[in-house]
Parts: sequence; C-alpha cells; structure tokens
Amino acid sequence: VRPTTLGVIGLGAIGGSLVRQARVAGIPTILGWSPEPAQRAAAARDGLLDDAPPRVETVVERADLLVLAAPPTANRDLLARLGTRLAPAALATDVGSVKRAVMAQAEALGLASRFAGSHPMAGTHEEGFGASRSDLFRNAVVYVTPVRGGEGAGAAREIAHFWQDVLGAHPVIIDAARHDAQLAVTSHLPQVVASLLGHFLAVQTPPGATLGPGARDTTRLAAASPALWTEILLMNRDEVLPALRSLEEPLGALERALETGDARAVHAWLSRASEWRRGVAP
Amino acid sequence: VRPTTLGVIGLGAIGGSLVRQARVAGIPTILGWSPEPAQRAAAARDGLLDDAPPRVETVVERADLLVLAAPPTANRDLLARLGTRLAPAALATDVGSVKRAVMAQAEALGLASRFAGSHPMAGTHEEGFGASRSDLFRNAVVYVTPVRGGEGAGAAREIAHFWQDVLGAHPVIIDAARHDAQLAVTSHLPQVVASLLGHFLAVQTPPGATLGPGARDTTRLAAASPALWTEILLMNRDEVLPALRSLEEPLGALERALETGDARAVHAWLSRASEWRRGVAP
Repeated sequence: VRPTTLGVIGLGAIGGSLVRQARVAGIPTILGWSPEPAQRAAAARDGLLDDAPPRVETVVERADLLVLAAPPTANRDLLARLGTRLAPAALATDVGSVKRAVMAQAEALGLASRFAGSHPMAGTHEEGFGASRSDLFRNAVVYVTPVRGGEGAGAAREIAHFWQDVLGAHPVIIDAARHDAQLAVTSHLPQVVASLLGHFLAVQTPPGATLGPGARDTTRLAAASPALWTEILLMNRDEVLPALRSLEEPLGALERALETGDARAVHAWLSRASEWRRGVAP
Repeated sequence: VRPTTLGVIGLGAIGGSLVRQARVAGIPTILGWSPEPAQRAAAARDGLLDDAPPRVETVVERADLLVLAAPPTANRDLLARLGTRLAPAALATDVGSVKRAVMAQAEALGLASRFAGSHPMAGTHEEGFGASRSDLFRNAVVYVTPVRGGEGAGAAREIAHFWQDVLGAHPVIIDAARHDAQLAVTSHLPQVVASLLGHFLAVQTPPGATLGPGARDTTRLAAASPALWTEILLMNRDEVLPALRSLEEPLGALERALETGDARAVHAWLSRASEWRRGVAP
C-alpha cells in the first residue's frame, strides 16, 4: 500500500526516521503522535508532520496506514486498546523486534486481514527523535510477519509493498515464531554477550587503562537502551534462555583447554570462530 | 634512541608497518628479516629495506636497535637464541601482546640494561606484510616494560623515546606483570568473548538469516589469527582464566532474572553495562 494518510505513533529514532523518509517519498498527509509533546513539536517544526494532534486516537482514526513505532510492550498495548478504532479500510503494522506477542494481539482482535508485523533491521544505538535519519530504511532488510491463516497473507503483502515502494527497503515475509527464534540468535544473544563483556569491563578495567578498538567494537551494543532491551529479552525469553545456556559448553571447553595448556584445543576453538567470522561481511 | 641501523625481525602487519614508518622518518639504514622469503622480497621491492639478508643473525649483529616483531613465542625463542649476539652498544625490544615471558628471558640473559619490552596498541585483524601501513603507530599508545631492577629503567626510556620520536606514538612505561594483568581484562577477555559469540553464531545462525551491524561489531575480533591468539591466551592463562571464570556470575544472574521474569533485575543488569559503555569512546 502507498498510503494517502500515514499515521505514526512514537517519534523516536525509528518513528522519526519513518516520517522523514515518508515526507521525502511524497506521502500526501503524515500524522504523528508521541507521548512526549516535545518530540511532536520537534517533528512538526522540521516540517515532517501535517498534523500532530494531542490525542493518539485522532491519528489511529484518520490514518489509512498506521505504524506503531513505540517500544514492543507499548505497541501491543496500543493495539489492544485502539486496534478496533482503525478506519474501515485501514491497514496497520508495528516495528518491534519481537513479533509473537503483538501478532497474537492482532489475531485476538480479528485484525488478520488488516495487520502484519514489521521489524526493520535498521536499528541505531541512539535513541529519540534526534537520532532519526532520512535514509535509515533504504536498503535495509525488513521482516514482515503475517497473522496466521490465509487472511494474513494479503495484509503482509501490502505492508511489504509499503516498505519497498515508499521506503526503499528489502521486505522479507517470515512467520512470527520463526522470526523470534532467528532474532534470538542473530540479535538478542549478541546484545546479551556485549552487555556481559560490558559488565566485566565496568568492574575490572584498571583506572587509566586504554581500551583498544577491539574492546570498543565488542561492547558497542551494550550502550543500547536498557528499557527497550528489558522488554525484548523478556518477551522472547523462551528463545533467549536456551541460547544463553548454550554458551556454557564452548566457554567450559576453552577453560579446560587453557587449564591443561592444550595448545591444539585452544587453536581449534579459536579457529572455529575465526573461520566463521572471516566468511561474514566486515 | 634514534637508531642509525634499525633491524626488524618479522615483516607482518606490525613489522612491515614499522619499516614503512621508519623509512618515512628518515632512519638511515633499515634491515629486515622474515622466515618467509616472499615477505622479505615484498618489503625490499617497496624500497623499505636497505638490506634483506638471508640469515637472521646478520640483522641481529648489525642493528643498533633490534625490534623483534614475530609472534610472542618466536620472539622469546629468538631472544634466547640470539640475544647475546647483539652489537656491544645495541638495544633491543619486541612488540608482543604478553610481556612477562619475554622479560624473564631478557633478564636471564643479563640484558637488563639493553632490552625493554614493547606492546603497541595498534593491532589489526589482518595479517601479513600486505596489511602493513605507514601510519599504524602514529598516536597509538605503546606500552614499554622495563626489565626488573634499576638497570632496566634506562633501556625503557631509550625504547620509549624511539616510539615517540621516530614513530609518533605515545609510550607508557609500565611493569610487565601489571601490563599482563591489565591486558587480560582490556584485550584478551574481549577476544575470547567475541570468539565465544562467533562459536555460537557459527553453529546456530539459520541459513539465509541476516546479521545486523550489532552482531558484526560484537564478533569482529573473532576473525583474528588463531595461531597468534593461542600463544597469547596460553602465555597469559594465569590472568585470563580467572577473568573467564568471572563471567559466570553475571551470566547466571541474567539467566535467573529471565527465568523468573524479573523485569527490574533485567533492567538493572542491562543498565550496569549500558552506563559503563556510554562513558567510553564510541
């Protein structure tokens, strides 16, 4: 769908980037809402919004495409509270990093033919409208998750088309459960590992010690929003916990190899990760 | 010391960068040796060496400053085998990331007044002469470790002066044991954590899944040379092992918080790392 009236709820880095890029793409009417009046005012001041009404309901009722760009729990609650107030032919999506909970909510509301989930792989460690960019989604992979059953496919195609046609992204339609299992591996575990190293370094770095680019790269993710990641990890904990526990075996294997001074085992352990990493984009 | 004849043994990324930068700095005579004739030939072809003799002894005997730029074990063995063949007034250093072993070797040979260790914080994930650069050490911190006892201080000052005056680096004189304890935290643990996540992703990433910039940042170090890192981790294992074991406590704390759905505890856990990381250069 190429909407005539786009409604965006949440004007942080993701929502703000959405309205910037939709403006550039020539969407006729863009409505935005944020619980923080200062963010609404900033977006309006930048000429990105045609209207920034004080009540979130106004945006929900007037949009023919509604994008929920709040944190995951807030998106789910907004959908539960306001999903039935969408205009009759309107479509809706969200941009959260965990998909099963919001999809179950959409299904429960009978929105199968009008809602599909989205997850743009275009995050930023920075937060808020000030971190928004007018090219954040260009060439980014965006996962689009249909509500289960035949009805969901049409809405997912329309939402995928929006990401591709209006925002220049690469939509990939995927089942929500498969999405959550995959992201537990490719995104949620890396976040936890970066924070685990951050924990260690916060406590153990000697005063005045220099951190090289390696330690900085490896902990960069740790700076991300604790509030957002608390939601993501808890919403996906049935996938994250087994992944976390699976770190214990290779960690133990390295410890034993170092304890016994087994150079061959240490080399094999490092080689496994090195060969894999050399096959991935820098 | 500003040497008249600089000898560099090992022409990989570090040794190669050393001869490039020494050439630019106008050192009159530069001798290089590598066990790989192709690397000697490449360095000579680039006009970086005044001589690339076939025997390593020739470089040791002619240099008035000798830099051992092989991997850590080879540096220690070279020092043991050839340290007594240095010219009477010559100084020597190495560039390895672990310092106690090579320092003990220098002390045992009675080289306290002529040897100091070096560790430039200017690594690269790439290997070999092809990865050498003419500005690798400019503005880099270089740790310089004196042999214990009063005699070592003079040699350390001379070596520090070489890094600063010839190569534009920032030398920091530090005790070898303190260096190894500090680097276990700031460098060796980050390497292990990046490789641990690399292990996990090598096994668990679903086919066709997209890795975002976060997962790529967090595993970038894992691509480093397994052979080099096997030496580093084993040479420093008395420092690395307790550090590794100390990861278990925060990892367990997060697992318990997720198991019990304790949002406050997850948030506190993430905040600890996030606050620390936001205080570090990006």
